[in-house]
Amino acid sequence: MDDLLAGNARYAEQFNGGDLSARPARHLAVVTCMDTRLDVYALLGLQLGDAHVIRNAGGRVTDDVLRSLIVSIEVLGTTAVAVIQHTDCGMTKTTEAGLRELVRERRGADARDVRFMTIDDHAETIRADVASLRASPFLPSDLDVRGFLFDVKTGQLAPI
Amino acid sequence: MDDLLAGNARYAEQFNGGDLSARPARHLAVVTCMDTRLDVYALLGLQLGDAHVIRNAGGRVTDDVLRSLIVSIEVLGTTAVAVIQHTDCGMTKTTEAGLRELVRERRGADARDVRFMTIDDHAETIRADVASLRASPFLPSDLDVRGFLFDVKTGQLAPI
Repeated sequence: MDDLLAGNARYAEQFNGGDLSARPARHLAVVTCMDTRLDVYALLGLQLGDAHVIRNAGGRVTDDVLRSLIVSIEVLGTTAVAVIQHTDCGMTKTTEAGLRELVRERRGADARDVRFMTIDDHAETIRADVASLRASPFLPSDLDVRGFLFDVKTGQLAPI
Repeated sequence: MDDLLAGNARYAEQFNGGDLSARPARHLAVVTCMDTRLDVYALLGLQLGDAHVIRNAGGRVTDDVLRSLIVSIEVLGTTAVAVIQHTDCGMTKTTEAGLRELVRERRGADARDVRFMTIDDHAETIRADVASLRASPFLPSDLDVRGFLFDVKTGQLAPI
């Protein structure tokens, strides 16, 4: 953790984003995975200040994502959402039952109420997650929602 | 959205992260806000591949964050978590009731079951969120969890 503070001290020395707004300049929110290989602003050619970034395991649409998007849209002016999942995702290499078993074995806890939202097929999951945002009664009916798959080997983004 | 694909094409041309692992090189997960002014790897002096990044409105510890951390820890080797909230956060400028009213007025929907997790006091909220991770039966008892506040005017991170 000391490394993080040292890394931040170097960043703060040359920080020049102090005048940026909490409102996304591109009126965009990105929903994507927590994966180590996604530098979100860089991979979309965005600058600091351009977009909200919401991330979780898999880049899945959850209640927390809906909560966050309501704030992004109603308070901070977002009008478009990009859902970006990626190749070689950890969520495709495990299962609901496998994760519950790991928690039971290692922590002695019963995670039967946790829905892990593992992924079988990326295109199918991206389409389902995009559809669930389009159908949400809490979001505007004209919200611009698109799905993409990012290739962690090539750095390329493909519309789904 | 076409701009995003064009921005990505430039990124992919010079992309050299194709050999990085899904396992965080620093065994670290960062939980932080979706805010436009947080370029997470940069502000911590991290490189692509170093850490998982989980983001939502406020950088709050939710069920989705727990779900994601279980995967990060049990499947991908994470041993430390940094919870980073920030000054000038949108979640300090609205209330649960205010958000429900916006959704009712603009969408005609009843969001009474959405817990928005707005923030009154940052230090108090960071301490509570750190404590809830430390107390979770689903996470290792020796998980290294720390809280920080990022100043969006100066780029500086302060331990809480």
